Amino acid sequence: MAKEQKASTKTLKGFRDMSPRDAIARKTVIDQIWSSARQSGFEPIDTPLLEYSETLLGTGNQETDKEVYLFRDHGDRNVGLRFDLTVPFSRYVADNLGTLVMPFKRFQVGNSYRGEKPQRGRYREFCQADFDIVGADSLSADVEVISQIAFSLGSIVPGNCTIYVNNRQILSFLIRSTLSGLDPLSESKILVAIDKLAKIGADAVVDIMLKVDGVEKAQAESLLDLLTSRSASGDLDWERLLSLASSDETITKEINRLKNTVSLISELNQSDKIKFKADLSIARGLGYYTGVVFETFLDDHPGFGSISSGGRYNGLVSRFSKQEVPGVGGSIGVDRLLAAIDLVQSAEQVQARSGVFIAIADQQARSYGFLILRQLRQMGSLSDIDLKEGKLAQQFKYADRRHFRKVVILGENEMATESFTIKDLETGEELKSVPLADLKSHVS
Amino acid sequence: MAKEQKASTKTLKGFRDMSPRDAIARKTVIDQIWSSARQSGFEPIDTPLLEYSETLLGTGNQETDKEVYLFRDHGDRNVGLRFDLTVPFSRYVADNLGTLVMPFKRFQVGNSYRGEKPQRGRYREFCQADFDIVGADSLSADVEVISQIAFSLGSIVPGNCTIYVNNRQILSFLIRSTLSGLDPLSESKILVAIDKLAKIGADAVVDIMLKVDGVEKAQAESLLDLLTSRSASGDLDWERLLSLASSDETITKEINRLKNTVSLISELNQSDKIKFKADLSIARGLGYYTGVVFETFLDDHPGFGSISSGGRYNGLVSRFSKQEVPGVGGSIGVDRLLAAIDLVQSAEQVQARSGVFIAIADQQARSYGFLILRQLRQMGSLSDIDLKEGKLAQQFKYADRRHFRKVVILGENEMATESFTIKDLETGEELKSVPLADLKSHVS
Repeated sequence: MAKEQKASTKTLKGFRDMSPRDAIARKTVIDQIWSSARQSGFEPIDTPLLEYSETLLGTGNQETDKEVYLFRDHGDRNVGLRFDLTVPFSRYVADNLGTLVMPFKRFQVGNSYRGEKPQRGRYREFCQADFDIVGADSLSADVEVISQIAFSLGSIVPGNCTIYVNNRQILSFLIRSTLSGLDPLSESKILVAIDKLAKIGADAVVDIMLKVDGVEKAQAESLLDLLTSRSASGDLDWERLLSLASSDETITKEINRLKNTVSLISELNQSDKIKFKADLSIARGLGYYTGVVFETFLDDHPGFGSISSGGRYNGLVSRFSKQEVPGVGGSIGVDRLLAAIDLVQSAEQVQARSGVFIAIADQQARSYGFLILRQLRQMGSLSDIDLKEGKLAQQFKYADRRHFRKVVILGENEMATESFTIKDLETGEELKSVPLADLKSHVS
Repeated sequence: MAKEQKASTKTLKGFRDMSPRDAIARKTVIDQIWSSARQSGFEPIDTPLLEYSETLLGTGNQETDKEVYLFRDHGDRNVGLRFDLTVPFSRYVADNLGTLVMPFKRFQVGNSYRGEKPQRGRYREFCQADFDIVGADSLSADVEVISQIAFSLGSIVPGNCTIYVNNRQILSFLIRSTLSGLDPLSESKILVAIDKLAKIGADAVVDIMLKVDGVEKAQAESLLDLLTSRSASGDLDWERLLSLASSDETITKEINRLKNTVSLISELNQSDKIKFKADLSIARGLGYYTGVVFETFLDDHPGFGSISSGGRYNGLVSRFSKQEVPGVGGSIGVDRLLAAIDLVQSAEQVQARSGVFIAIADQQARSYGFLILRQLRQMGSLSDIDLKEGKLAQQFKYADRRHFRKVVILGENEMATESFTIKDLETGEELKSVPLADLKSHVS
């Protein structure tokens, strides 16, 4: 196998290896999400990473369609890697309509794939945690999903953050009443432009809007003004909004629902770190949203982008089923959140010493060493043993670099007398001829 | 989005959705593996699912090469889905030689992908847990990897199992001395044939061997006889083996190493459920093994196939690096193990009732219900609330189907008096007008 020309050790652009430190941080976040989700009655499911491409395409928007990894498999099927967890979940729901107890509350943690431009904290392979409720088109379900995300975020977010809440129907109404005569495709382009507001600013959003047929600058500016203006108290001007929609009963109802949703989730909030705010400029780029939508930004790092988002998608399951199944859900961007934690806690923490390393001074004592290792592991101690079968000085250096607290040293003497020598790498203290029976009290 | 022609809800052949029950079982196994691995000083890393195809190809064998999912990505790169965790790990090691503390002990849990024929308990997407030690070519490292796998399996395996241990160099020696004049490619075909022994039986293995140029039936049968014969005690006939290899110093050393390995791992064994046995017919199909190899079978279901396997691969990292880095490792087939658990514990267990469901008798009491939900969650109770905003009878039916133990019922009365009604779905007992201050004592 060894050739002169060595294979590259590179990972693909937008992909990365995770060090032990990063992998442990991610597992910790995932475990916290599992525990808070199960406590709230959300049930875990999993779906394959690979799906028929027809399952995936045409559900997000034109941009995400282009980003899906598509290919033909060994059976010449058109397949693709999932780009989110929501679309496969809606297929799952349609496939299990006969057995799911509705409303069905599910969560799922896993990787998705998008061939988009990599940026800081944004990778082509990224881990998300999704919470969804299908089978209920109620304000209660909207509140439960957003509260659950706040509940999960509360224990892991590195600083204060705000969940900004809007409603797609209200936003569409405001777009249609400001920019008259838009077809659905043009309207979705306007939505995608508004979705970029936090990232690129108002002027750039207006520039994108002007590329849509029939949109004039004054209109575009007036729309942005409408979406971002607030009353003196900093809240939305609900009165003005209700009067704009006074002739439209459906929109009036949605405005009241949004107001009640934000008020209820604020009341239920369990964490000092999390605030909620109604915000008409929240759009969400994906095409499948039909009601409430939300995004979450770090208060001290708004430019970092959203760490959690979602919304109501009442039409998604009907791609797969004649039965209407309303749904609402949201994701926590686990990898984005970990990048945010890194951003805030940039100083590397010093790893505390712990555990016991068994050093072998004489190879004759090796099986004696393994027997002590077995005892340590039965006690539940973090424990390891020399595997190089080399010099004692190198074994100490290795134990030190691995941050072990104590080293048990074993030679012919120790083996003959069923004892051990033990050194504390933090204090430097060393004890000789400790009877094996006293092992437990010296390592815990 | 809703069209007359509905999209299929099918998963791809060899792929599947996981129900909540299966997803919880898998998470439980993964958590046990994490905990036992970290206790033994193995460190977690992760690598991307997608790699350059040149990283993956030519490392396993011709069969696995054909099974790799290969395609071109958006940047026209040749890429593939990983087919195991060992090859990407060897790339990782070569890429991090400057910073890894050697010997480096790592574990990794994740999915791999092979376009092979699906069978019971074998999927094209499968989860494995890998344990590897690189930077030590010692008997101690062989022992530590196999002991760790036994340690992890001990807490999760559904019945008794045996880890069968062999050595690739001894096996190659026996093949070469029985079937003379084999080239390396023919030898690897013989290895792949022997690897199928447990699955297809001796006659079928002989048939495959006869397809290799120059192999005669008598030779093939004599080889199989040599690999499967045992002394009266059921152990390997070590004396006979040593005499066969007496002229070859390297093989004599490997025979003694195998004998010592099996004896040491047996001595260190912590679980009654796990036994160890030297077995010359264990081959492992992959091409990269250079020393110890092992497979694990359930004693009561040998036909189920191997649930854990691995071996030493001293040449794998040198594909990527001029520095020689010896390695030894093994995998637990997490999904195979879960299928085995299902096979043994086929009777569905009755789900015990637990947790509290809040039913809303009057919509006016909804925000009062959400406030009680918040209190329950702060107490750490499994808790949920009605999301359908429908009739009370339906809410009870839902709570029952979700296996909740208690239902808290809230109406205008309860809200006005800051109290609640609570019904135990197991005993049928119902209490009215319990003061809210007594919530904790009624739900825990």
